[in-house]
Amino acid sequence: MVESKTMGDWRVHNGVDFGGSTGNEVVAVAKGKIKVNREIYDTIKAGNSAKGDVLGVATTAGIMAAKKTWELIPMCHIINLGSCKIDFECKEETLEIYCICTVKTVGKTGAEMEALTGVSVALLTIYDMCKALDKTMEIGEIYLAEKDGGKSGHIVNER
Amino acid sequence: MVESKTMGDWRVHNGVDFGGSTGNEVVAVAKGKIKVNREIYDTIKAGNSAKGDVLGVATTAGIMAAKKTWELIPMCHIINLGSCKIDFECKEETLEIYCICTVKTVGKTGAEMEALTGVSVALLTIYDMCKALDKTMEIGEIYLAEKDGGKSGHIVNER
Amino acid sequence: MVESKTMGDWRVHNGVDFGGSTGNEVVAVAKGKIKVNREIYDTIKAGNSAKGDVLGVATTAGIMAAKKTWELIPMCHIINLGSCKIDFECKEETLEIYCICTVKTVGKTGAEMEALTGVSVALLTIYDMCKALDKTMEIGEIYLAEKDGGKSGHIVNER
Amino acid sequence: MVESKTMGDWRVHNGVDFGGSTGNEVVAVAKGKIKVNREIYDTIKAGNSAKGDVLGVATTAGIMAAKKTWELIPMCHIINLGSCKIDFECKEETLEIYCICTVKTVGKTGAEMEALTGVSVALLTIYDMCKALDKTMEIGEIYLAEKDGGKSGHIVNER
Amino acid sequence: MVESKTMGDWRVHNGVDFGGSTGNEVVAVAKGKIKVNREIYDTIKAGNSAKGDVLGVATTAGIMAAKKTWELIPMCHIINLGSCKIDFECKEETLEIYCICTVKTVGKTGAEMEALTGVSVALLTIYDMCKALDKTMEIGEIYLAEKDGGKSGHIVNER
Amino acid sequence: MVESKTMGDWRVHNGVDFGGSTGNEVVAVAKGKIKVNREIYDTIKAGNSAKGDVLGVATTAGIMAAKKTWELIPMCHIINLGSCKIDFECKEETLEIYCICTVKTVGKTGAEMEALTGVSVALLTIYDMCKALDKTMEIGEIYLAEKDGGKSGHIVNER
Repeated sequence: MVESKTMGDWRVHNGVDFGGSTGNEVVAVAKGKIKVNREIYDTIKAGNSAKGDVLGVATTAGIMAAKKTWELIPMCHIINLGSCKIDFECKEETLEIYCICTVKTVGKTGAEMEALTGVSVALLTIYDMCKALDKTMEIGEIYLAEKDGGKSGHIVNER
Repeated sequence: MVESKTMGDWRVHNGVDFGGSTGNEVVAVAKGKIKVNREIYDTIKAGNSAKGDVLGVATTAGIMAAKKTWELIPMCHIINLGSCKIDFECKEETLEIYCICTVKTVGKTGAEMEALTGVSVALLTIYDMCKALDKTMEIGEIYLAEKDGGKSGHIVNER
Repeated sequence: MVESKTMGDWRVHNGVDFGGSTGNEVVAVAKGKIKVNREIYDTIKAGNSAKGDVLGVATTAGIMAAKKTWELIPMCHIINLGSCKIDFECKEETLEIYCICTVKTVGKTGAEMEALTGVSVALLTIYDMCKALDKTMEIGEIYLAEKDGGKSGHIVNER
Repeated sequence: MVESKTMGDWRVHNGVDFGGSTGNEVVAVAKGKIKVNREIYDTIKAGNSAKGDVLGVATTAGIMAAKKTWELIPMCHIINLGSCKIDFECKEETLEIYCICTVKTVGKTGAEMEALTGVSVALLTIYDMCKALDKTMEIGEIYLAEKDGGKSGHIVNER
Repeated sequence: MVESKTMGDWRVHNGVDFGGSTGNEVVAVAKGKIKVNREIYDTIKAGNSAKGDVLGVATTAGIMAAKKTWELIPMCHIINLGSCKIDFECKEETLEIYCICTVKTVGKTGAEMEALTGVSVALLTIYDMCKALDKTMEIGEIYLAEKDGGKSGHIVNER
Repeated sequence: MVESKTMGDWRVHNGVDFGGSTGNEVVAVAKGKIKVNREIYDTIKAGNSAKGDVLGVATTAGIMAAKKTWELIPMCHIINLGSCKIDFECKEETLEIYCICTVKTVGKTGAEMEALTGVSVALLTIYDMCKALDKTMEIGEIYLAEKDGGKSGHIVNER
């Protein structure tokens, strides 16, 4: 069973360079997951842990981190992201929470590091907000799922 | 075969609160890995990619990120880290590069988020510096390996 | 009628200096409000605007800003906040949303700027997330409501 | 009586996208005020408080904060501001100091959050530098006074 | 002839650890200078350049940068500065502006990097605000002038 | 004798605005030096101090600081740097280490502050990593060596 929670669609308001017909929008989608125990899974699902709405805070943290990627990764340059979206898929059977971060920008430069950073920090935030309950959680399977635009063309990494 | 590269031992110079007999030093050790292909593995090992010394830059990035954890994770407070060390273990057979981040601070508060953030950003930096060669790398197995001090006592997570 | 929404209680986990008997905890409480129109009020109440859960995001933003106060206000020094809590009171009759930020730290230094900054950024975040609906919102009545501890003793500003 | 002090006109040096004939410059003007007591008013006017030139420091703080808006407000994206100007109007009769922040950028995206953030942080800085004298100051009436360019056209909010 | 301008004495308000009798206050004093031409010298002296009060803005920038030293210098840890003061000495004969940054903190750890960073950024700010007039300015002679407290004891570097 | 070490060529991946025929690329080159003693010189040359590879860490720090120039220098606006390169020239006879920072961007705006900031922070990082050995090091001769593009045309400052 797959539950889905979507929030935090962050989108710029018709930024100057985002012309409809320019045909040079770049999209990057990164994924990752965190493995939790039953107690944490239920707490997150209830959206009401002692520290607040876990997925809501993680969404905000992921978006803010994506914008700060250039500050964290030494060889990344500043990108004015056009949009950044964080989605979660919670799989009850395996007690895994998947995070998907989709970013868009303009031009030939890719934004995959922004998507990967958004996923990483969103998952770390989940860890932080639940670590009082269990310290054996594991974050993993962080990778670039899809990329379109930019000089490397269309890439899809199946898993 | 395990190659080991150690650098970037970042250590404060006898900070005011770090008395020998206070008995309240806290240590947190986090681990993670990145799976690369043969070409990237050899490039990293040679220490001389087009973008420079990959592990050297990743070490610096990981240390700087650990100090910024409170800025990334909403519910983390500012910790004045006493030391932060990044180590890498490169496993040629599986083409995996393991990152270990060890942080120390003082008091009952734990620093596990700092260690986990240091690992995550160090691994993202490796990804960034090698992504021109391959975009199927995967970051994973990020977890708290050990923690000592603080109110939760001594914790060891075996994998 | 007063609706109340509380979330995001951010609290350190027994930080080293937070001894029970030291008797030098400092508390600062700041308040402020934003005046909105009916459409925005209902959107916020529903917790489901186009940009997400407005008060949830504003809570996270306020907490993160409180930690960054020293970076924004030139003559403020770095304070390691012990806790930061954001509360909202939504008054339907007047269409006003009140924000209350409570911060705690240790010692003789006050944390009032942190509380005031937390309130200001939380309210600016509400503005940002609702500004597509109306641009005449007004932020106001930002002041120090209460302060205890520190060299200025116990202060209560009634309004 | 209205005294006026203008400083800190921050203007980029012919940035690449700021062409004369493009016709897509966006301007946002935000206002706000702080109510002080007589002692503080005179101290600010004299420009020589114990902590230095209050309005001078507040100007610098406001400009720097406007540039950091995207770091504070979660759903704001990075804008490369073309210019940011802070003005103060000090009204002796009511002991109010008004702050006006005018920012310019290029394109269809608005910069109103940058102007509002600049005003907020400039006023918080005044509070901080004068709080040793009085803790009942109040910041208020922060709103968007004018906006031109961008998809919402020309907006003027009279007060 | 030596003109002296002092401003921006930034001092914490009796921070918790700054006890009078602890005897472990650390002081670091760094110096540096910028060589300008006659036109710039006079502009700075007049305190009224096109970009505002040069030394006033440079003071604020230096103080804010000293607080961010740990974010800039990879192996520096976070120090909660007790105070940071920027002074300028303008030597008309040689058209040199000297900057002196004095920082204080508590404990055995030194704060010399904070003082050196404060000087460097204050001087860079002068350069920036005057560079429209001349681009041959030179920043130099940045060194640690004095240090007291900390494990290295009392150090005075004469020049 | 001049030894040369080059690393850390940071270059964006064909960013959207970096068209080949636009003819408006801006280049700025800044220089500076640090005077050390024999022990430090040899330690740096060996690349293996107690704190790690000094020039490697300084390169990363300089690049990251160049990107943060707008955050440090109040009147600098955000520039999306196209590339940032740090080079060192170590002169054994005089025991001086020269740092050269070359940045590129697009448009009429200059990037000289970014180059000067990159040099300053790279040199401060060298100081920090070697200060345990000697505290009389001096940083100096920081100036704009060359600039091309932008409204001020081609500038070369000979020394």
